Amino acid sequence: MQRPSFLDDVRPRASRELLIAALEAFAARGYHATTTRDIAQRAGLSPAGVYVHYPSKAHLLSELSRAGHEAALRVTEAALAPGGDPVERLERFVQVFATWHAENHAIARVVQYELGALPADGYAEVTALRRRIELLVQHELRNGCSSGAFEIEDVPGVALAILSLCIDIARWYTPSQRRRPSAIGSLYAELALRMVRGRD
Amino acid sequence: MQRPSFLDDVRPRASRELLIAALEAFAARGYHATTTRDIAQRAGLSPAGVYVHYPSKAHLLSELSRAGHEAALRVTEAALAPGGDPVERLERFVQVFATWHAENHAIARVVQYELGALPADGYAEVTALRRRIELLVQHELRNGCSSGAFEIEDVPGVALAILSLCIDIARWYTPSQRRRPSAIGSLYAELALRMVRGRD
Repeated sequence: MQRPSFLDDVRPRASRELLIAALEAFAARGYHATTTRDIAQRAGLSPAGVYVHYPSKAHLLSELSRAGHEAALRVTEAALAPGGDPVERLERFVQVFATWHAENHAIARVVQYELGALPADGYAEVTALRRRIELLVQHELRNGCSSGAFEIEDVPGVALAILSLCIDIARWYTPSQRRRPSAIGSLYAELALRMVRGRD
Repeated sequence: MQRPSFLDDVRPRASRELLIAALEAFAARGYHATTTRDIAQRAGLSPAGVYVHYPSKAHLLSELSRAGHEAALRVTEAALAPGGDPVERLERFVQVFATWHAENHAIARVVQYELGALPADGYAEVTALRRRIELLVQHELRNGCSSGAFEIEDVPGVALAILSLCIDIARWYTPSQRRRPSAIGSLYAELALRMVRGRD
């Protein structure tokens, strides 16, 4: 399984290895069927060794979800940094966000599928991060409408659809397939532009 | 949880109740964390009573997956029955397919998330049904291009995107939210048409 590069900065090393072990275990069998012992074994630790770093299995899921959503928010913010017209900006965002979900499909899949298993505070944190991404995209779409570049009746609905299209890549993408992540990004950027532009 | 209406015809009644119980258990905790005993308890049977109808938990998942995919294929075939121009036909298909994934979000979610848990024969069966849906949509897109109604460079890619957009509704949709299934269907039908039409 690919190791998400955004986990590289997690310190100490044992905490990072436990997150990766939890990700692999959750991806293989789901959150509920994974035991702390499974995670410890994958990371080469005793179950007691897990608790030194994370008080529970739920904390590992929360930490993966938080890290995954924060990474997705960072790529969104970077893609939507100042500069460019509305068409270029949306194109850049969808290219990057779609590519990211192909490259990080393993963690994205766990994070999306196990949202219901998060403890209340972890869920609230992740919901706030998701909302920020959603509002950034809505803001872009409204700016594009104001400038006359886009023609959209239902901005929240179209923002949801564009995000959904990108996120669902994590469900169907496998590294064995013909389409490369950046090629999916290019196709989706074009489709998103078609979704928002009027017929002139 | 909503009971998928396409399971209504399953006979005898105990088999139907077991499928519903399995669906509820898989939705709540995932396939791997669910035991045959959990399913039996939900259906008011003994574990031995389950085996009278289904030889294993894997058979219950296979049967749910097969029934779900067959139902999705039936709505696809009905929406794409002869009649109408390419624009009307694609609009009707997306309207119906998106609405179906909102209305049947519980089973669609289990079926999509647990694809990796299917035994080999169940997986092969479901892959064939998915492929039929994909080919029907590709065929529609090609016809639309031939008639000049659509302008698409990458027909398989756009078919994948349209299907993905509809399927992902099952991930984010909840009955508590403001958008009704048919309203999502209408929005998505419009977005799909925008994705395929040239700018004239």
